Amino acid sequence: MSSNPWAGRFAGNMAASMAAYTESLAVDARMIAEDIWGSQVHALMLHRCGHLDDAALATILHWLERARADHERGSFVMRAELEDVHMNVETYLIQGAGAEFGGRLHAARSRNDQVLTDCRLYVRARLLSVEDALLELATTTLALAAQHTRTVMPGYTHSQHAQPITAGYWLSAHVAGWLRDLRRLQAAYRNLNTSPLGACALAGTDLRTDREYSARLLGFDAVLEHALDATSARDFLAEALSALTLLMVALSRLGEELVWFSSHEFGLLELADAFTSGSSIMPQKKNPDCAELTRGKAGRVIGDLVQLLTVLKSVSLGYSRDLQEDKPPVWDALDQVHGALRVLTGALGSITLRPERMRAMVDANFATATQLANWLVAARDVPFRQAHEIVGRLVGEFTRQGCTLTATAEVVAQLAGAGIAASAAEVAAVLDPLQGVERQASQGGPAPGETARLIAGYQTALAAARADWRQRVTAVSAARDETARLVAAALSR
Amino acid sequence: MSSNPWAGRFAGNMAASMAAYTESLAVDARMIAEDIWGSQVHALMLHRCGHLDDAALATILHWLERARADHERGSFVMRAELEDVHMNVETYLIQGAGAEFGGRLHAARSRNDQVLTDCRLYVRARLLSVEDALLELATTTLALAAQHTRTVMPGYTHSQHAQPITAGYWLSAHVAGWLRDLRRLQAAYRNLNTSPLGACALAGTDLRTDREYSARLLGFDAVLEHALDATSARDFLAEALSALTLLMVALSRLGEELVWFSSHEFGLLELADAFTSGSSIMPQKKNPDCAELTRGKAGRVIGDLVQLLTVLKSVSLGYSRDLQEDKPPVWDALDQVHGALRVLTGALGSITLRPERMRAMVDANFATATQLANWLVAARDVPFRQAHEIVGRLVGEFTRQGCTLTATAEVVAQLAGAGIAASAAEVAAVLDPLQGVERQASQGGPAPGETARLIAGYQTALAAARADWRQRVTAVSAARDETARLVAAALSR
Amino acid sequence: MSSNPWAGRFAGNMAASMAAYTESLAVDARMIAEDIWGSQVHALMLHRCGHLDDAALATILHWLERARADHERGSFVMRAELEDVHMNVETYLIQGAGAEFGGRLHAARSRNDQVLTDCRLYVRARLLSVEDALLELATTTLALAAQHTRTVMPGYTHSQHAQPITAGYWLSAHVAGWLRDLRRLQAAYRNLNTSPLGACALAGTDLRTDREYSARLLGFDAVLEHALDATSARDFLAEALSALTLLMVALSRLGEELVWFSSHEFGLLELADAFTSGSSIMPQKKNPDCAELTRGKAGRVIGDLVQLLTVLKSVSLGYSRDLQEDKPPVWDALDQVHGALRVLTGALGSITLRPERMRAMVDANFATATQLANWLVAARDVPFRQAHEIVGRLVGEFTRQGCTLTATAEVVAQLAGAGIAASAAEVAAVLDPLQGVERQASQGGPAPGETARLIAGYQTALAAARADWRQRVTAVSAARDETARLVAAALSR
Amino acid sequence: MSSNPWAGRFAGNMAASMAAYTESLAVDARMIAEDIWGSQVHALMLHRCGHLDDAALATILHWLERARADHERGSFVMRAELEDVHMNVETYLIQGAGAEFGGRLHAARSRNDQVLTDCRLYVRARLLSVEDALLELATTTLALAAQHTRTVMPGYTHSQHAQPITAGYWLSAHVAGWLRDLRRLQAAYRNLNTSPLGACALAGTDLRTDREYSARLLGFDAVLEHALDATSARDFLAEALSALTLLMVALSRLGEELVWFSSHEFGLLELADAFTSGSSIMPQKKNPDCAELTRGKAGRVIGDLVQLLTVLKSVSLGYSRDLQEDKPPVWDALDQVHGALRVLTGALGSITLRPERMRAMVDANFATATQLANWLVAARDVPFRQAHEIVGRLVGEFTRQGCTLTATAEVVAQLAGAGIAASAAEVAAVLDPLQGVERQASQGGPAPGETARLIAGYQTALAAARADWRQRVTAVSAARDETARLVAAALSR
Repeated sequence: MSSNPWAGRFAGNMAASMAAYTESLAVDARMIAEDIWGSQVHALMLHRCGHLDDAALATILHWLERARADHERGSFVMRAELEDVHMNVETYLIQGAGAEFGGRLHAARSRNDQVLTDCRLYVRARLLSVEDALLELATTTLALAAQHTRTVMPGYTHSQHAQPITAGYWLSAHVAGWLRDLRRLQAAYRNLNTSPLGACALAGTDLRTDREYSARLLGFDAVLEHALDATSARDFLAEALSALTLLMVALSRLGEELVWFSSHEFGLLELADAFTSGSSIMPQKKNPDCAELTRGKAGRVIGDLVQLLTVLKSVSLGYSRDLQEDKPPVWDALDQVHGALRVLTGALGSITLRPERMRAMVDANFATATQLANWLVAARDVPFRQAHEIVGRLVGEFTRQGCTLTATAEVVAQLAGAGIAASAAEVAAVLDPLQGVERQASQGGPAPGETARLIAGYQTALAAARADWRQRVTAVSAARDETARLVAAALSR
Repeated sequence: MSSNPWAGRFAGNMAASMAAYTESLAVDARMIAEDIWGSQVHALMLHRCGHLDDAALATILHWLERARADHERGSFVMRAELEDVHMNVETYLIQGAGAEFGGRLHAARSRNDQVLTDCRLYVRARLLSVEDALLELATTTLALAAQHTRTVMPGYTHSQHAQPITAGYWLSAHVAGWLRDLRRLQAAYRNLNTSPLGACALAGTDLRTDREYSARLLGFDAVLEHALDATSARDFLAEALSALTLLMVALSRLGEELVWFSSHEFGLLELADAFTSGSSIMPQKKNPDCAELTRGKAGRVIGDLVQLLTVLKSVSLGYSRDLQEDKPPVWDALDQVHGALRVLTGALGSITLRPERMRAMVDANFATATQLANWLVAARDVPFRQAHEIVGRLVGEFTRQGCTLTATAEVVAQLAGAGIAASAAEVAAVLDPLQGVERQASQGGPAPGETARLIAGYQTALAAARADWRQRVTAVSAARDETARLVAAALSR
Repeated sequence: MSSNPWAGRFAGNMAASMAAYTESLAVDARMIAEDIWGSQVHALMLHRCGHLDDAALATILHWLERARADHERGSFVMRAELEDVHMNVETYLIQGAGAEFGGRLHAARSRNDQVLTDCRLYVRARLLSVEDALLELATTTLALAAQHTRTVMPGYTHSQHAQPITAGYWLSAHVAGWLRDLRRLQAAYRNLNTSPLGACALAGTDLRTDREYSARLLGFDAVLEHALDATSARDFLAEALSALTLLMVALSRLGEELVWFSSHEFGLLELADAFTSGSSIMPQKKNPDCAELTRGKAGRVIGDLVQLLTVLKSVSLGYSRDLQEDKPPVWDALDQVHGALRVLTGALGSITLRPERMRAMVDANFATATQLANWLVAARDVPFRQAHEIVGRLVGEFTRQGCTLTATAEVVAQLAGAGIAASAAEVAAVLDPLQGVERQASQGGPAPGETARLIAGYQTALAAARADWRQRVTAVSAARDETARLVAAALSR
Repeated sequence: MSSNPWAGRFAGNMAASMAAYTESLAVDARMIAEDIWGSQVHALMLHRCGHLDDAALATILHWLERARADHERGSFVMRAELEDVHMNVETYLIQGAGAEFGGRLHAARSRNDQVLTDCRLYVRARLLSVEDALLELATTTLALAAQHTRTVMPGYTHSQHAQPITAGYWLSAHVAGWLRDLRRLQAAYRNLNTSPLGACALAGTDLRTDREYSARLLGFDAVLEHALDATSARDFLAEALSALTLLMVALSRLGEELVWFSSHEFGLLELADAFTSGSSIMPQKKNPDCAELTRGKAGRVIGDLVQLLTVLKSVSLGYSRDLQEDKPPVWDALDQVHGALRVLTGALGSITLRPERMRAMVDANFATATQLANWLVAARDVPFRQAHEIVGRLVGEFTRQGCTLTATAEVVAQLAGAGIAASAAEVAAVLDPLQGVERQASQGGPAPGETARLIAGYQTALAAARADWRQRVTAVSAARDETARLVAAALSR
């Protein structure tokens, strides 16, 4: 048999430049375990529908199991001239089992549905890992946040001091967002967990098949029915990649904070040595590489998404070779996002916060000015806009004088000048940052008790997400086990 | 009162270049109705929590209602020097109601949560329109598909004839994909339909508030609790824009097909004059502009998504002015996708398919070759790879001779040469495209009965999506009505 | 005459949804002056080649001049139903001059070459403005840099203190990069300044024409000859947009620095009030909006580039309607980049640097550690890697002890412990930051004299770029004047 | 010596997840030859400036030469735990030469300038290959075009027949565009061919160095002086990647044409078997994979550009680890573009055009209608818009009747109905496509003589570009040879 499956019709061989250009083995070799699983299930289905007798099934399964064993011990040799992983496995099978048996496996399927089946199985497994790592990161971060619901730090807007918050409040804000990322990952999972197997090239088959059976054995939730849709659509990849990109963008925002908050000038926190690097020329450096790279890799993943979307744009239905380019960006994003989650989990798990520095920064600038303005509204019935003007003028004056809001007497004097009577004790209480934070007790605010309530809610949500994750992991395992059981039974017949 | 709300603290005025650079009125003027609604609800909440007395509430609501009336009859004048729509509305209010009343409205909120509330309300309304238009397109397409489940046409892969399918099968494949787009739009809707109102600048407030009340009156499903998260996160926009982009990419693929299928060379279909254009110089032209533009606008929307994601990347939590750039790409994508859906609905609703040309194309090339190969497997027990080689050789030979698979006698002869006995009648039946399509009856295949079953399923799914859409439209209306009732009651007190 | 120029062939009217979808007037109305200029030149060329007699030319030019006058005083009414600016101008002409004359103007051109001519003229003018603004920014920045060649500040890598540099050195680094941006803008300019006029729809014309004449009168450097290339290619836009995007990315990096350097924690500089904003709720805020928006708008412009490239991808030659989407991203990028340049020129022209704070930051951390390591290499002949280890250990020890490299005696002691003898005076000189910077006198280093030499070189380069810019501005003006002279002559005949 | 160069200051080891996340060896291993060259030159410079004596130089060069020899015969072992190629080479050197000598090489440089030097050398080499391949493609295409200046085919706009052109005209349009791509690649080359070596970490050095000498030995055109700029800027990569992306987008447009023109329905051309593939299930398929993949890979390269630009956006000056992500997208784009150029050269070099089919398509539709309209203008003095209406009506009528413009008598009759007298011979001549093409003789038009003139001009331009390329290849070789000569001299001292 010639190496190209379509050799019958062709006069010439593929040009070397063409073979290099179209090769996908480096990309799809990752899917070998999935390709074997998919082929086993397809063989079982063909047998069940009467297209393979017991002996043919056993022979095919024998050689597929052998391929799997070779692969698992690292001795499956991929041959580049066979172009992709699927032809490598099929050729291995045919060389072992002979064309008489091996050649029958490709009935009622084509490379189109085969590749997509493998791809869905592979991305499914990787998405489960990403969810796992995100759950870990969220759990770690939430534990840290829970310890710091009374650790006052500046809350920033425009990278300028805005109002005092707490470190626990800051960290839990990231978790609040990640819970939405988890939901998107779950939705992407459910979208991809449907079976294209049996869609064949674009139009199903005239052979009797049982797509529900194949789907069940592969752990898919359902059959993706319409064969032309099943072989053409790539939204299952695009949705997963979108979810990954949004997550990575969210992580990059934490990365930006870690970079600047760990600078000498901010000094709000310090990363452990294990998550930083030094310099080959500047001996004093301790660089927040994990955070910087997370920013950079967010750019990389955004580009991955652009790759996929741009590849898909304006491609007519029915497989086109453009679509071969659907996998590299998804593979890359899965790798990068997973790496970022693991490294950030480690970094936050070993981070040192600097509560004294955080507090000093709150006192040093005018972070508590809003507390004063709100107090004018609440306790002195000044309309908000006017309160804002009074405090704004006070801050302007203090800035020129070089003093801060810890200068209680000066504040009292300035207020008096604006016609507002207030005692020093009153003013001190109003401007105390921790008291101020405690007063910010509106729903979702940074008051320690409210933050603790939020954190408890997020812990519950994380537990639910973990349970959902575990249920899916179990379902996939069960499908794999059921396949193994049927393979063993067929081999022992 | 000076025009900038922060004038108290500032010595200088904003530079002209800076005012031009930071201006957002052209973008956010679209949200005026939402801004007024949000302000009404905020006033009602402040009153309920004791921060406004009856008179203050009535005065504020009076001027907000007047602003709304002015806007609705087109006489609300936006002043560019007020920078954005929110300051325009607030200034209108303060000038009407006086600072004594108008200045109280901004208690317990900031521009940060105010803008986000308006933005969510606006995008919510626009997403409902997009869903509506997509349901229309899918319904129209499905109706067309249902008429053509027996209209044989070439199925293409690689833009080459692959196997015969039907026009109904081709069209319904698009609908199958759009149902997933609908699900993504619904998920984006549910993500955005939570209330940031009351999150204030970044840290809630020390005033007593009732965020649940505000959320309910604005038709939100829930409060988005964590104030720092609520004011920092933009995934509600990114998820919506991702969903819109994936949909637009899907539409571009139909666009590509319409462009080429309507070319003279293909001739499979013709667009109505109303959805094409002519040429200023070439009198014979009938250009598929609606389809071409849909390809082009898919590129535009992909770029919109890149804008948003790149803006968000590496921005620390707490509002930063970078985030002002979050709206233009979303506005544009909503416009473009909605336009595309409407124009494609019109184009498919008035399209002329050319069944004779479709059938001629099926006969002219070797689209039925797979049927022959499959028959060798099924009826003559030839292993698939070998069947493929036999038919491949036959096709190569026929191509050289210039004849097609309608030459039954030649096929019989060629098969005989390969050791396969077959009668002319048998071969003719095997190679008849409609019979061939009818045999492709595997689950999700193009057999007319199977396609009809798929279409029925899609109709059911569309009905469910429409019901879900209607329920949400109703809920939003009910919230708006409830607000109006409370406003009227307050004004009549 | 019916409104659509192709009405003769068409049975139906354009659908309303289609008209809305394909409308481009909002985008191309900007090119009205260019459309009139191009039409005048085309009329002059047609006359020169014998296709218009004196009377026809005069009538056409009369009405075009009138359109121009109307436009310049704001009274040219654009009618949306005429779809684009070109049909508006042509309809104005035909209604004024009558079809007998007006209808003759469209000979030997089509909308394809007409639109591209207008577009090139428009982008040319806008690119000149962008270059002008960039030259201003660079000149302003360089003037500031020249004042600060001895103002020591921390040089950062990884946002951590690396080595002392000067503020002048930091600022001049940006100018060094902008000079390359200027070169790219000039290259883009030369690429776009060729004339497509006369390429007609895709294949030139069988009428006698003089494309060189038209090109010269429009100030183009040459004719873009190949008509199919001229009407299909959009690299003139993509190259300009790439150059703009790279520039905007460069500006965003300065933006990031301005944001963080102006934070309370860094405090290295302060933006003037005119280039910041306050908060509606936090009276103390002074937000670096100009810098933040420049980061955000860089994301926007990257997305613009993606729009254009994705629109162009996979579009066959010969105009396709997809290409209508080529203008919005370019228009937007021109606006955003121009705005960013102007606002940054203002911001840097009014910025306050804080030399004492810069110096304090240099002393506070271990920014001078490399000076010590290099001195070990140069003065004590320690191999570099070993010097690095010695200083690294010293820094580690000092960090634990909480002291800095200003503690000369401790440094002497630590060095002694590593077997290196050094006097206190020697160590103090080695570790003095300004002396250290003065020693960094290698080519391109931060030593004040070397920085002054670099700045002088950049000033020379800016002067050359300004001269090149002026020469092009003059050439465009001359072409416009020559057209006006010929128009006046024709009208007075 | 510990493996991390900054181990002196650090207490802990890098976490495993962190090592995996920050690892760049898989990416930068490609630059080993450049790293060795750069190190050799740096050693020669250090010796020249008195920092290395003869023995130290000889020892260092000995081990670097050995590393090179190991690499060239495939026996240089990269150790992943050393993180990148630079540490691998340096460790090899130190282990061979001892820290006493090897440790001295890193004086007066840092990894920052070292990596950038390697990167520029590597991209320089790859850009030369890309230019070479593009020159090949253009030469091949032009040769084909030259054979077909009289092969009439339909010219398309909107993928609809517009006017007759020739195959030579179509093909040469692509070459016209590629010449501009060549210019952009040359500009990118000149931008990157400047030397960052000696910029060190960010601020040069206090050691005596000779950056001009290093630059000359590495074949750079000049020193990139400003050290902070040299170590921070990545526009040399972004400009190269932009140029590559624009080229790839241009190639994708040819790809789209090859896909559809080779479809059964168009049938205008056929790709050689060597550049197509078959199907595993459909024996008749001959798929234009080379063209499809070129479309897909254009999407990939656009995403590469987005990766780079988004990584760079908002990164402060001075190396940040984000910038490690600058290389993968550039490497990928270089690979993809080079592959596309080679495969398209092969495909066009072996393509079969189908002149009869092209001619049949010209006759079958109304591609010659414009010729008729133009003739009415030129020979019958009908205003253009009116001529357009007359022909438009005729085409509408013929479409309804199902006849084409080859029906001369019908055309005569229709014209007569519009009041235009014309003989059958006259009409036949006007409507003959080849005669029509010959009349399209305006500058840059498809008339065979004009096309031949254009082609001759492009050949001249290609020869000039080849000469420019050759000059640069020679200069790089000369620099490499000079380095080798100096190395040999030092080793033999």
